[in-house]
Amino acid sequence: MPTPWQQRFAQNAKSAQSSAIRDLFKVTASPEVISFGGGLPAPEVFPIAEFQAACDKVLSGNGPMALQYSNSEGYAPLREMIARQMDPFGMKLGLDNVLITTGTQQSLDLISKMLINNGERILVEDPTFLGALQVFSIFGARYVAVPIDSDGIETEKLPEAFKVGPRFMYIIPTFQNPGGVTLSLKRRETLIALADQYGIPIVEDDPYSALRFEGETLTPLIALDAARCRTTDGYPSGNVIYCGSFSKTLAPGLRLAWIAAPPDVITKLVQIKQGADLHTPIFVQMAAYETLRDGFLEKHILTIRKVYHERRDVMLAAMKEHFPAEMHWTQPAGGLFLWAQLPEGIISINLLREAIKKNVAFVPGNSFFSVDEKAGERYFRLNFSNMKPERIREGIRRLGEVIRESRKV
Amino acid sequence: MPTPWQQRFAQNAKSAQSSAIRDLFKVTASPEVISFGGGLPAPEVFPIAEFQAACDKVLSGNGPMALQYSNSEGYAPLREMIARQMDPFGMKLGLDNVLITTGTQQSLDLISKMLINNGERILVEDPTFLGALQVFSIFGARYVAVPIDSDGIETEKLPEAFKVGPRFMYIIPTFQNPGGVTLSLKRRETLIALADQYGIPIVEDDPYSALRFEGETLTPLIALDAARCRTTDGYPSGNVIYCGSFSKTLAPGLRLAWIAAPPDVITKLVQIKQGADLHTPIFVQMAAYETLRDGFLEKHILTIRKVYHERRDVMLAAMKEHFPAEMHWTQPAGGLFLWAQLPEGIISINLLREAIKKNVAFVPGNSFFSVDEKAGERYFRLNFSNMKPERIREGIRRLGEVIRESRKV
Repeated sequence: MPTPWQQRFAQNAKSAQSSAIRDLFKVTASPEVISFGGGLPAPEVFPIAEFQAACDKVLSGNGPMALQYSNSEGYAPLREMIARQMDPFGMKLGLDNVLITTGTQQSLDLISKMLINNGERILVEDPTFLGALQVFSIFGARYVAVPIDSDGIETEKLPEAFKVGPRFMYIIPTFQNPGGVTLSLKRRETLIALADQYGIPIVEDDPYSALRFEGETLTPLIALDAARCRTTDGYPSGNVIYCGSFSKTLAPGLRLAWIAAPPDVITKLVQIKQGADLHTPIFVQMAAYETLRDGFLEKHILTIRKVYHERRDVMLAAMKEHFPAEMHWTQPAGGLFLWAQLPEGIISINLLREAIKKNVAFVPGNSFFSVDEKAGERYFRLNFSNMKPERIREGIRRLGEVIRESRKV
Repeated sequence: MPTPWQQRFAQNAKSAQSSAIRDLFKVTASPEVISFGGGLPAPEVFPIAEFQAACDKVLSGNGPMALQYSNSEGYAPLREMIARQMDPFGMKLGLDNVLITTGTQQSLDLISKMLINNGERILVEDPTFLGALQVFSIFGARYVAVPIDSDGIETEKLPEAFKVGPRFMYIIPTFQNPGGVTLSLKRRETLIALADQYGIPIVEDDPYSALRFEGETLTPLIALDAARCRTTDGYPSGNVIYCGSFSKTLAPGLRLAWIAAPPDVITKLVQIKQGADLHTPIFVQMAAYETLRDGFLEKHILTIRKVYHERRDVMLAAMKEHFPAEMHWTQPAGGLFLWAQLPEGIISINLLREAIKKNVAFVPGNSFFSVDEKAGERYFRLNFSNMKPERIREGIRRLGEVIRESRKV
């Protein structure tokens, strides 16, 4: 029986919806389920031996430092490695532009603490990453949602959306979650020009861009914006807070990510990070750096790309074979997800219920929509990174069966 | 030059004072400084070899799980090990009473998100842990402070303090930080009776209690409260949210801690944890469990106790020898800290400035006081866990010199 203070807290506690994806983990944890839910990397590509060697090296050579308290900014060699990732885009980041975080979920938590006051609006893509909606909502955010098409967010609709005075724009420009689409270069330029003109910052969430299977790499928003806003000393002073991550290129279980931003923004975020968890486990930062240094990261990304490229192709081919002809889905050029629309009359949540009976899982579209959940009811997201090709083929075959059966009802 | 949105954010950003302790890390990082600041464990007692073997075992036997996404509650075997720690106090915790966090700083962040609404008062000990004040303040907390004496918080002053309607009480009952004092059993009983009577929950922060050098172990507040509030099924449904930590018994660089509370409180905290960092690095949880299992934790705690016991004795003896007779300080029976009062007319912040010239550091008292910082100006905190005995002797000798010189001015 809850005590009186617990009853009060239950009434007063700020909203914290349980994430549909994470609840799904529980249902689909059993090995016989073919899960296209979640956003899990392929465990086959984890560099376990290399990481194990790195842990040994760190603990043998530098154990006391790896186990002691550390600074909130993060391990300097790792921050330097991250800073250099922007060099190919003509952007020179320094150590004071980079903060290590305990996963992108924490990056979004720290940014929310810095920027969101209760009741303020955040501009988001429609649909968008539900983990972001979850953390923004904890801080009392409301939303203004702008639709995406195959070229990403429809930038011509932004000025109208700005009228409600959004605090910032949350954008996943490359291989968007859940859409699988990528913002075109032309729209990137429009977006950063509008951010500058209206004084509305952009939070750029970029966990997937390294996983490109085909086509040309597009410059991240932060680098485009820095070129535009460059001050006389060449120092970035822009409108973009960039969220990068090692979850998809090394391993998500390490919870290792970063924020890149102008130095005064990083200074504020470091203070907030102190209050959140003091620092990201320094042992993990050092072991990750030892694993990834000297070109291993770049080499390892090629391995991951090859595996996910094949899985995407297998999934698209199976969908073409087994899904009804009137269905539509995106053709992602990289990343982990694609986004599909069901034939009229089929609701994705009902479909999931039937699919689970055949041991297949995916994420229904509703929870990715911030303003009008109903807008997502005919959509669902499929993950192609986690299941092996033969399981993808079988899962899509069963899903096609369930869809055809649902259509008959 | 800050862009317009950055200027706005600088005005609007919620308060996040930089922690004096963490800023001190930067000054005192150089190896010639004898630092009694910070709260760093002795690196000599880190079980590096054991942890290294555990990492190897986890990655060899269970690498894919250790590197993959995991659940927000935490690694079940580790939660079970934690739950069993309350058995000696007659309290049966289950898995649904325990949430793994990324350090106690995160435990306090999650609890703050759940309970604090902007502008509400938190009842704290005066002085108290400044990392707690830092995170509470980020959520807009104000304070009501109740003094401590050598028996801990002065419980007879609580009913008066309750008049401002505090949201919860934040209490460090054992080897308090910074005071070094321990709440007596009688006051523990008064405290939990008052919590129940007034319906004001207690956040019990208990990172040090395993490090007892002498005297009898006292029952944690959560166990006393559970005995009082026990429901008919024996299930704890009390007024205490307990924060435990492995930072002082294993290693702080791993950022590994936990919250124990009634199941419905844990359920809410798990949702908030999802939004904060999805989960604590699962590799770290598994490696810590492998290190600590089968009685190693209990054995290792004996080693730490012996080392810190000696260092405390060395520090107390050196203080007696080198500090002016009119000074007062606490005699902690365990933990990492003691708390000293300067002779009249000496301000601890000024003293620190002089001490740093002689390569000695400590934390001035001011920042531990939530309501009236000036109340702390004649106090300072000394950490005795991090420096080796000969350095403690030399550091206290120099500090005595600086104090005597300051008195002459």
